[in-house]
Amino acid sequence: MSCCHSEFDTAFTVDASRITFGRGCVREVGDRATALGMRRVALFSDASVARLEFFDTAMQSLRDAGLDVVTYTESSVEPTDESFRAATAFATETKPDGYVSVGGGSVIDTAKAANLYATHPADFADYVNAPIGAGRPVPGPLAPHIACPTTSGTGSEVTGIAIFDLLSLHAKTGIASPALRPSEALVDPDSTDTLPGEVVACSGLDVLSHALESYTARPFTRRAAPAQASQRPMSQGANPWSDVGSREALGLLGRYLERAVTDAADREAREQTMWAATLAGIAFGNAGVHIPHAMAYAVAGQVRDFHPSGYPGDAPIVPHGMSVILNAPAAFRLTAPADPARHLAAAAHLGADVAGAADADAGAVLADHLVRIMRAVGMPDGLAGVGYTESDATALAAGAWPQQRLLGNAPIDIDEALLANTFRQALRYWS
Amino acid sequence: MSCCHSEFDTAFTVDASRITFGRGCVREVGDRATALGMRRVALFSDASVARLEFFDTAMQSLRDAGLDVVTYTESSVEPTDESFRAATAFATETKPDGYVSVGGGSVIDTAKAANLYATHPADFADYVNAPIGAGRPVPGPLAPHIACPTTSGTGSEVTGIAIFDLLSLHAKTGIASPALRPSEALVDPDSTDTLPGEVVACSGLDVLSHALESYTARPFTRRAAPAQASQRPMSQGANPWSDVGSREALGLLGRYLERAVTDAADREAREQTMWAATLAGIAFGNAGVHIPHAMAYAVAGQVRDFHPSGYPGDAPIVPHGMSVILNAPAAFRLTAPADPARHLAAAAHLGADVAGAADADAGAVLADHLVRIMRAVGMPDGLAGVGYTESDATALAAGAWPQQRLLGNAPIDIDEALLANTFRQALRYWS
Repeated sequence: MSCCHSEFDTAFTVDASRITFGRGCVREVGDRATALGMRRVALFSDASVARLEFFDTAMQSLRDAGLDVVTYTESSVEPTDESFRAATAFATETKPDGYVSVGGGSVIDTAKAANLYATHPADFADYVNAPIGAGRPVPGPLAPHIACPTTSGTGSEVTGIAIFDLLSLHAKTGIASPALRPSEALVDPDSTDTLPGEVVACSGLDVLSHALESYTARPFTRRAAPAQASQRPMSQGANPWSDVGSREALGLLGRYLERAVTDAADREAREQTMWAATLAGIAFGNAGVHIPHAMAYAVAGQVRDFHPSGYPGDAPIVPHGMSVILNAPAAFRLTAPADPARHLAAAAHLGADVAGAADADAGAVLADHLVRIMRAVGMPDGLAGVGYTESDATALAAGAWPQQRLLGNAPIDIDEALLANTFRQALRYWS
Repeated sequence: MSCCHSEFDTAFTVDASRITFGRGCVREVGDRATALGMRRVALFSDASVARLEFFDTAMQSLRDAGLDVVTYTESSVEPTDESFRAATAFATETKPDGYVSVGGGSVIDTAKAANLYATHPADFADYVNAPIGAGRPVPGPLAPHIACPTTSGTGSEVTGIAIFDLLSLHAKTGIASPALRPSEALVDPDSTDTLPGEVVACSGLDVLSHALESYTARPFTRRAAPAQASQRPMSQGANPWSDVGSREALGLLGRYLERAVTDAADREAREQTMWAATLAGIAFGNAGVHIPHAMAYAVAGQVRDFHPSGYPGDAPIVPHGMSVILNAPAAFRLTAPADPARHLAAAAHLGADVAGAADADAGAVLADHLVRIMRAVGMPDGLAGVGYTESDATALAAGAWPQQRLLGNAPIDIDEALLANTFRQALRYWS
C-alpha cells in the first residue's frame, strides 16, 4: 500500500531510546537491567576497557542486583564480519536474555550484532545493507540492550546502526534497523576522565561532523516518499528534530571541545562534550550523515603507515573521527552553495564570526573555522598529514563511491570525478 | 537497593516515543498500526472530532490496511473517573489488540486509561497518583497505542500522563507512568486548519507555559535521588534535555503564535505552533510543570459562570490553556529570584528585549512580555476576567494546594498563604 501522494516526502519520523545522562549513572545498570526483565546478562566490552575501574563498576552493579553475568571482552576495536560472528557464537552458546555493552562504538555495535543474529538467526549477509548484503528487514524486536558508552564520539548508544569491515571485500559496511537501537543508554561522563586528549579530539571531531552533516543533509522534503510509511529510512535527511539536536551540539562543541582536549582535568568540558555527542547521535540517527563520512571509509581503509599518538599498538590506523574531519573542510566548501544560509548558521553556532558574510562566502567561512578548530586540537594537516598524495585521489574516490546510502543523503548530486577532486582539495589546509 | 550515593540526584533520564510529524501523515496510521502488530484496533475520539474529515481520513487508512476497527467516540471533553471507567468497559468488552486515538488531550488520555485498565485490570484507585490514589506502579507494558493529536496543545501524545476529575472529591488528578506513553505519535498539522482562533490561542498558551515551566522547574540536581534509579520520576525537574526542547519551543511560539491565532489561513504559523507543542510536550514529559499548572486546576475547578467564545455549548468552563496562562505572569514574578538568568533567557527566547535588564528585573521582564502576548491573542485580563474576585483567593489556594507533585517541582518553596497571594496578584494585569 502506498500511503503518500507526492513524489517527495511530507513528513519525518524520529525515534530515540531512553537515555540517562550524568556522572555515576553507570551504577544504575543493575537496577535498570532488572527493570527490563533481564536475569542472565551478556556483558560486552573489549580488552582495554575491561581493565578500567569503570568496567568493574558496571559489573559490580549487575552482580549487586543479583543478575547472572556472562562476560565477552573480545570485541574487536575495528569490528569485522568475523568478529561479529564470533560474538554471535558466544551469545548463541551462553543464551543471555539481555545485553549490556560497556565501551566505544565498536563494543556497542558488536553487542547489537550478537543480539540480532542470536535472536533472529540468519545468513550473515541477510541483514547487511544492500547492495553488499540482502538488506532484509529485521523480523522483530531483539533482546533488551543497555549501552554504556566510554567515549564521547560515535553515538552508537542511540542509533540503530552497526558498522563493520567485510573482510572478503575489504569494504566497510553495516546493518541499519530501528530494531538495533539499544533499549536504553547510560551515558556517564566519569568514563571519559581517563581518555587521552588525542582520543577526545578524534571522537569529538567525529561528533562535530555528525552534527554538521545532519544539519546540512538533503532536507527530508527532497527525499522520495517511501512506498510504505513505516519503512521511512533512518537516513531521512535534515528535519526540524535533527536540526534542534545539531544546533545544540555545535554550540556546545564550539564552547567546550578545545578545553576537553587540552585539559583532562576540565570535568565540565568533558561532560559537556559527552552531552554534545549524545545530542549529535540522536540527530544523525534520525537524519543521516553524508560526504565527509562516505569519504572517511576510504581514508581509513587505504591507510598505509600512519599511526597517531595516544592510540595503543603500532598498527597503521587513521582513527574514525580523524578520517572524517580531514575531509570536512573540503566537503563543506563543496556543499555550501546548496544552502549557504544553513552553512553560515552552522559556522555561527560553532562560534565563527559570520557578520557581513555573503552567501558566496559560506563554504569558506565554515571551512576556515573548522580548520582553526582542527589546528587547535592537534589534527594533521589534511590527508597529506596521514600519508596520502595527489596520486591517491582516484583510488580514494573509488573506495568511497560504494557508500551510496550516505552520498545520496548529501545536499548536492555528486559523481566519482567530483569526489576525487574533493579528496584533492582535502590534501592540505594550512601548509 | 539504593544505587545513588548523594542526597541529590546526579543524573536525569529521558524518554520519547516515536514521533512522525508532517502534513498528511495521519494517512500513515493504517500502515503503522499494522507494523505494530495490531489486527483489531479500538479507534478513540469524541463526538465533535468524529464529525471532521480528519477523523474519516484516519478511519479510511485503518480500513485500507485491512484492520478490524471498533470505534469509541464517547470520550468526554473533561474526562472523569466515570468516563474513564466507561471507556475501560468498552475496551474490556470489545477486546482490541491496539489503540488509535484521534483528538485532543482528553481523547488521548481516555485511550491511555482504557488501555491501562483493560490490559492490567485493577481497582480504579490503584494506579491513580498518591495521595488521592494508591500510586501503584503499572505492572507491565500496555497494548500498542498510536496517538494522533488534533490540537496543538496538551502534548499528551508524547507523555505518560492521563488527567481526569475524580468526581467524588471534585478534584483533578491523574495517572503517571512511562508505560502510559503512546507507542507512536502521528502529529499532522492538517488537523489544525479548522480550529477556531480562540482554541489555538488557549492551547498555544498551554504549550507556552509547558515550555516556561519546564525551563524554570527546580533543577534535577536539587531533587532527592530516587531510592531506585529505575523509579526516577518523570517530573524530575529542569535538565539539559528538557532545556533544549523548551528553548526551541519558546523561540517558535514567540515568532508564530500570534500569527497562528489571528489568521487560520496562515498554514506555516499553525504548523510551527504544532511543532512547538510537540517539543514542549517532550520537554515537560521529562521535566514536569509547576506553579501555573497547579494553580490552573483550582481555576478550572471553581469556575462559576464564565464561558469563552469559540468553544461549543454554554456550560461554564475555563479552557485548560487559559486557566494556566492567567496565573503565569504572577507565578513567574514569584519564581524569578530563584534563577533570574534563566527567567531572562526565557523572555529573550520568546522575543522580549532583555538588553540591560538586571537580575532584579527578571520577573517583571518575563511577566510583562507574557502579558503583551496574552493581550495580543485575546486572553481575559487575569482571573478577574473569568469571574474571580479577591475573596476567592483563599479557596483557590486550598484547591491548588493538593497538587504537591507539581508544587514540589517549583524552583522555590511555597506554602498555602504564598499561593493565595499569588492568586491575588493574578487577578488583574492591565486594567
